[in-house]
Amino acid sequence: MPQISNTLRLADEAMSIKYNTMVYELKAAGHNVTVMSLGEAYFDIPLMPFDDLPFPDIYHYSHPRGIPQLRRKIADYFRTEYGADFDPNSEIIITAGSKAAIYMSLLSIIEPGDEVLYSEPTWVSYPEQIKLCHGVPVGLPYDHPPADYRQYITPKTKAIIITNPHNPRGYVFSEADLTHLVGLARQYNLWLLCDEAYSDFVIDGSFTSLTKLDPNKSNSIVFNSLSKNLGFSGWRLGYVISNRDLIFQVLKVNQHLITCPATILEHYVFKHFDEILAITKPQIAELAHKRELLARYMDQIGLTYLEGTATFYFFVSIGSSRLGSEEFATKLLKEHLVAVVPGIGYGASCDRFIRVSIATASLEENKDGLDRIRNLIDETS
Amino acid sequence: MPQISNTLRLADEAMSIKYNTMVYELKAAGHNVTVMSLGEAYFDIPLMPFDDLPFPDIYHYSHPRGIPQLRRKIADYFRTEYGADFDPNSEIIITAGSKAAIYMSLLSIIEPGDEVLYSEPTWVSYPEQIKLCHGVPVGLPYDHPPADYRQYITPKTKAIIITNPHNPRGYVFSEADLTHLVGLARQYNLWLLCDEAYSDFVIDGSFTSLTKLDPNKSNSIVFNSLSKNLGFSGWRLGYVISNRDLIFQVLKVNQHLITCPATILEHYVFKHFDEILAITKPQIAELAHKRELLARYMDQIGLTYLEGTATFYFFVSIGSSRLGSEEFATKLLKEHLVAVVPGIGYGASCDRFIRVSIATASLEENKDGLDRIRNLIDETS
Repeated sequence: MPQISNTLRLADEAMSIKYNTMVYELKAAGHNVTVMSLGEAYFDIPLMPFDDLPFPDIYHYSHPRGIPQLRRKIADYFRTEYGADFDPNSEIIITAGSKAAIYMSLLSIIEPGDEVLYSEPTWVSYPEQIKLCHGVPVGLPYDHPPADYRQYITPKTKAIIITNPHNPRGYVFSEADLTHLVGLARQYNLWLLCDEAYSDFVIDGSFTSLTKLDPNKSNSIVFNSLSKNLGFSGWRLGYVISNRDLIFQVLKVNQHLITCPATILEHYVFKHFDEILAITKPQIAELAHKRELLARYMDQIGLTYLEGTATFYFFVSIGSSRLGSEEFATKLLKEHLVAVVPGIGYGASCDRFIRVSIATASLEENKDGLDRIRNLIDETS
Repeated sequence: MPQISNTLRLADEAMSIKYNTMVYELKAAGHNVTVMSLGEAYFDIPLMPFDDLPFPDIYHYSHPRGIPQLRRKIADYFRTEYGADFDPNSEIIITAGSKAAIYMSLLSIIEPGDEVLYSEPTWVSYPEQIKLCHGVPVGLPYDHPPADYRQYITPKTKAIIITNPHNPRGYVFSEADLTHLVGLARQYNLWLLCDEAYSDFVIDGSFTSLTKLDPNKSNSIVFNSLSKNLGFSGWRLGYVISNRDLIFQVLKVNQHLITCPATILEHYVFKHFDEILAITKPQIAELAHKRELLARYMDQIGLTYLEGTATFYFFVSIGSSRLGSEEFATKLLKEHLVAVVPGIGYGASCDRFIRVSIATASLEENKDGLDRIRNLIDETS
């Protein structure tokens, strides 16, 4: 067999996939596992009709930027929900998921050797995507707030990526945080990339879209996910918003990489957008309420976690346990039948943490799972 | 604005998009244009039901390799149609279109500076995808058959890409051609990439899948498109077949770039696969018959074209015209209202050609368009 590329040494399968595969095997062997490891929320949404979508347009390639009516719909949503404006004709492109949007944007800006900063715990694909673009991933330790980012900027720094609200800690960036970062990007001539995939999971009004604070989008590239916010993560619909020049680069990359997202699903989402949001928003609110209750429960039983109020994750400290996060998570799964993901999968600074997802288990199951985490910490201290 | 990547100088929008935009504008101004420039066949297919697909699986991420039942379906198809075997568990991954499959495979094998050979006229995304991987695209002039490829191999050569049947010339590689290329790949330790997206457009039984001639797939990477062969190009469903190690690399890249194709459409295609093929195959046969008739018509009126029998394209010589292909195509469109794509868009050796697509216009319209091409050649000789 000829060689496989040696330059692009990707990490093996993401830690979350590894643990979820172990869960699958334990379940298949008849064990009753409490699953706090999944990266998906399961909403209860009916399937709406497909047969009244514009036929036969649904079969063919979309407009290269995504169907215009859906772009306008998203622009309206930004105006009413986030108080932010962008031009639906030139400042957005709809992509096959926000993951592809982020990759294509990185590919549009990175020269080989350019450094890209992001904070740990990181969304697992940032370092790998940066490496695939021949850039250098620079993970900032988890205990460094945005005010500390400046000290990591070098002449090779090209961009800073943030996730707001932060996945997997749940931190919502304040307007002051974002203003500081926009200032930093302007001062050092950097791109500021902001993944807002969990924007609808902030229900207390504290979310600010970066598009509002950098209205010309001269330094900003903003991503969001339709499939995540609307509850069909498997449909791969996302978008990127930036200035027209950057969007034009992404458009060219997209034409050679993917062409467009599935046209029929763009039409479906456009047609049923308001209806689906009306169904998912109360379920998101319920999930947020569950997160609040579980935060209080952790306070009661003496578990600590990184500051945050949104998403359906907690990044929980394993405190005084003498185990590393992988050993801890493996023992927790095999001996106590609770599945979480080891912190080390989210950055070198995160080996004293585990990622806990509260999305799929019930409130009582989640409490029971947290009790077992508490016990395992004590048992291994 | 911070810099956009300078290393990845992509060509501006593909030539075909440029000419199709001009067509759009002429039509909007009330002109009656004969369109022989489109890269899509429009089949007449009804929309089948969505409401009996497995619910709620359709909403969530697919298995990272694509849903197992669709992988097995494709394996059955290869066995019965092409006499070729692959393991549906480890030797295939279903992707968001074959374009993404090709890019992710190139990304899996190319080191910066590696050369990749392909023959002109080229599918427009090969050179751009190779550049996006920091490789060096090496286009072989159109008049070099597979027997000549050896002379272009250097110590930096990593791969050869072919398209079988060839888009846009329609050439079907013989078993002898393919055997020669597999031998070359083995001798020089190269990857042989073969895009078989138009396989179902060969109706005389002359198509051989590369998977049949390299059964261990030690040197082969084969691509195909579900959305193209089944008539819904906008649904972005393709796949890549190779040995398990290469597929595992592509799987890792895919997890960080796109995750999976739209799950609901995988289920739809699995469920309706045979039904849809029964509808599209007669329409493909009709298109192939139209191609044959138009080939004979060109012989009658003295138009020459590169050898080929499949797809819905002809790569037609502009012979004695003193115009370059762009001038020719622009004059043909603006003065004679026939849209084609200039050959120069398909490689430096192709400026004496135009690409003619017979897919959308009727037989009579196509004949009339060919007459006008003939006249413009005479007029400008």
